[in-house]
Amino acid sequence: MNTPSVPQVDAQGSLRHLLTVDGLPADLIREILDRTATFLPDPGAPPRKVPLLRGATVVNLFFEPSTRTRTTFELAAKRLSADVLTLQMEHSSKTKGEHDLDTLFTMQAMGANIFVIRHPDNGAAAYFADNAAPDVAVLNAGDGSHAHPTQALLDMFTIRRHKPDFTGLRVAIVGDIRHSRVAHSDIAALRTLGVTDIRVVAPAPLLPDNAATLGVHPCATLADGLDDADVVIALRIQHERMQQALDISPADYRRDFGLTADNLVSLKPDALILHPGPINRGVEIDPDIAYGPQSVVLEQVRNGIAVRMAVMAMIAGARSGA
Amino acid sequence: MNTPSVPQVDAQGSLRHLLTVDGLPADLIREILDRTATFLPDPGAPPRKVPLLRGATVVNLFFEPSTRTRTTFELAAKRLSADVLTLQMEHSSKTKGEHDLDTLFTMQAMGANIFVIRHPDNGAAAYFADNAAPDVAVLNAGDGSHAHPTQALLDMFTIRRHKPDFTGLRVAIVGDIRHSRVAHSDIAALRTLGVTDIRVVAPAPLLPDNAATLGVHPCATLADGLDDADVVIALRIQHERMQQALDISPADYRRDFGLTADNLVSLKPDALILHPGPINRGVEIDPDIAYGPQSVVLEQVRNGIAVRMAVMAMIAGARSGA
Amino acid sequence: MNTPSVPQVDAQGSLRHLLTVDGLPADLIREILDRTATFLPDPGAPPRKVPLLRGATVVNLFFEPSTRTRTTFELAAKRLSADVLTLQMEHSSKTKGEHDLDTLFTMQAMGANIFVIRHPDNGAAAYFADNAAPDVAVLNAGDGSHAHPTQALLDMFTIRRHKPDFTGLRVAIVGDIRHSRVAHSDIAALRTLGVTDIRVVAPAPLLPDNAATLGVHPCATLADGLDDADVVIALRIQHERMQQALDISPADYRRDFGLTADNLVSLKPDALILHPGPINRGVEIDPDIAYGPQSVVLEQVRNGIAVRMAVMAMIAGARSGA
Repeated sequence: MNTPSVPQVDAQGSLRHLLTVDGLPADLIREILDRTATFLPDPGAPPRKVPLLRGATVVNLFFEPSTRTRTTFELAAKRLSADVLTLQMEHSSKTKGEHDLDTLFTMQAMGANIFVIRHPDNGAAAYFADNAAPDVAVLNAGDGSHAHPTQALLDMFTIRRHKPDFTGLRVAIVGDIRHSRVAHSDIAALRTLGVTDIRVVAPAPLLPDNAATLGVHPCATLADGLDDADVVIALRIQHERMQQALDISPADYRRDFGLTADNLVSLKPDALILHPGPINRGVEIDPDIAYGPQSVVLEQVRNGIAVRMAVMAMIAGARSGA
Repeated sequence: MNTPSVPQVDAQGSLRHLLTVDGLPADLIREILDRTATFLPDPGAPPRKVPLLRGATVVNLFFEPSTRTRTTFELAAKRLSADVLTLQMEHSSKTKGEHDLDTLFTMQAMGANIFVIRHPDNGAAAYFADNAAPDVAVLNAGDGSHAHPTQALLDMFTIRRHKPDFTGLRVAIVGDIRHSRVAHSDIAALRTLGVTDIRVVAPAPLLPDNAATLGVHPCATLADGLDDADVVIALRIQHERMQQALDISPADYRRDFGLTADNLVSLKPDALILHPGPINRGVEIDPDIAYGPQSVVLEQVRNGIAVRMAVMAMIAGARSGA
Repeated sequence: MNTPSVPQVDAQGSLRHLLTVDGLPADLIREILDRTATFLPDPGAPPRKVPLLRGATVVNLFFEPSTRTRTTFELAAKRLSADVLTLQMEHSSKTKGEHDLDTLFTMQAMGANIFVIRHPDNGAAAYFADNAAPDVAVLNAGDGSHAHPTQALLDMFTIRRHKPDFTGLRVAIVGDIRHSRVAHSDIAALRTLGVTDIRVVAPAPLLPDNAATLGVHPCATLADGLDDADVVIALRIQHERMQQALDISPADYRRDFGLTADNLVSLKPDALILHPGPINRGVEIDPDIAYGPQSVVLEQVRNGIAVRMAVMAMIAGARSGA
């Protein structure tokens, strides 16, 4: 695929696409988080339904299956009163790129305004944005191991609600850092917002090669990584990865890297635990931790709708000059 | 799965969940049927669209495929102006229960208000209700061979439109009574509404063990069962069941237990014929019977939308204190 | 399947169903095209959302997969504010016809007003219309090799925007004419609107047997067909067809019958190029042609939404007496 050339922020500093957290100015991230707060339902109240995208057409193009991410984008668009189409796309390596463009051009001609792209290839969302019509926006819902910006934004929003000052935070990310678009986008967002102490905890084959460039501290053991941490982000581990890259059992992974009551005994009482979901119960996290008092896993889900509503509303506003 | 402990009726006698017909008070059933009538379209008019669930999110969680039941719940929710999500869930016996709860918790965090559950396990809907947040309602759209309460309610509504007085009714249920959630829920509803003469007609292996407890009279032949009947409910027979439990051909089943012109020659002219659909043409029912003058099969379908609208509207009203 | 007997135009000359272009009066086609223009979005503006079908239920019954056609009908219905259900149907040759009717009757009982039918069998849409309730309309979204009337109408609309006078037009249709419902419907529409010079260009096995009856001129070479043409309609070629009926490679097909820069060197500069999509890049059309200055392929897609909105609005208006 070509190198993307379309900027995701326009000359006025407004959001045009959301492709990656890398390069997003801190002020714009904070503006998205502020806007997100306006879309949160009041406690005990039903979700808000607003007419901001009435008449707009949001197309979910999912080249990878993902019930959860698809559902949150669908609900966010519906609560903004948009018409929503979800296309589960087959992706063949033979026709990739060109065939994807035919789909883009066709859906644009149907009047689609916002494309939500989930794709196994790094850079796919930028490739769509690079080829999209000027009045069309692209949101990256996860491309390969590259980026998952709405997940990172909802993670930042969730952390900020509990720990408003990012500058002194100590954050540990536990799991398959190397292959995780969530980790890459979380690290970029945390650094942009001023976090200087980011630890990555994983078996050696799952640690990133470029930890220094990323600005993170690799830790070989959970005890090292969690020491004095304010925030712990657990990542989903794939069963194939354990078998192939690691050759360890789920039970062994849990013993060494799982968020379990035993492993978290010395965690600070006010530390937050995050997980992007869906969880592998009893592997990277135990259910009593995932639904325990320090976990904000379900807040992440709730906030995920609001952050996607905020991003779509901001992009639609920038497009219409509002 | 745990024994359910959440009651489906609250202290004020209002409907909080709809899990089973067993234990539903007769007055509440009648209230549902009365409310159903208000959602029926006028003859020749298009379906009604009302804003009662505007802003609410209805999630269909289908762990078994069912185009018809899914479609009726979807249409009922849309005609109440709710946002509707349908998730076709994979169900693995290995992860059942726990994994289902993760889905419940996640969708609740997204702001879902009403869950419609279709599941192969008896008690699944009650399990969801037992674990749901206080402001969330669960509707059982069929769980194993246990219950299918909205089907029973629409059957009662359909019968009542033609035979308002249930006390003297003679009702025959024909088919795989033993494994049928429809039969179990219909029997419970009929008895609660005062029907004392309920016959069940099936080959011996498909008759229930506990006919006396159920309060029904087993009949070995269709002639016995239909004698002087006011209502005949045919059940869908599964092809695997005929082959395995019965070792008879579809043609033989039809000859002995099918609703055919020959078999119904002595049926009372004002007797009603019901079938929950979809029909197996020429097995448990012939098409000229299914679409004949005594059949109310298509009325059942129409009423099925209205009864689901009524149940969702009543639950939403009870939740909001309206 | 039975011979259809329900007329698609009522005694007042209004559209009741849309089953085929054959027999549609020229005035009615022009009325549809005029109405289509009212549903086109203004340049640069978002698609229009109008309440003409508010409360109506549109059911897409797709017995063949087709993301594009399904999507355009879904969007057209949503922009008319209808409730939309899409059912991907399995089609077994054993149960066809009868089983399809059960689906029709059931969906009618649910209050469905408009059925959009895509089906592998010639005549399927007419069969549904023939058996539908009087207040229900059927739109043919492609049946076998028989007809695809909305595609032909959007093609006519697209051509008319650029070439308002049809009487002197020279039109070449290139590709698998014999098996193409698009070709059959396009030919009928072109002839009804007064086109007398229609050429069909294809390898001999893909030319129609009844060219004279159809009123078209077969051409064995692209050069003959495109000579002095005003409009070129390329058809999608199926890979199986090339292998089985033709025994030629995609590269050879492209060399002889593909719309490539080389093959179009003598095409008139104001000639239009159409393709119903999705395109096979580098087989029947090259991407630089499909997205080049003479192509109206993406206009076809845009117009396809508007023509389907127009047809649904006209049918709904005729039904309600408006």
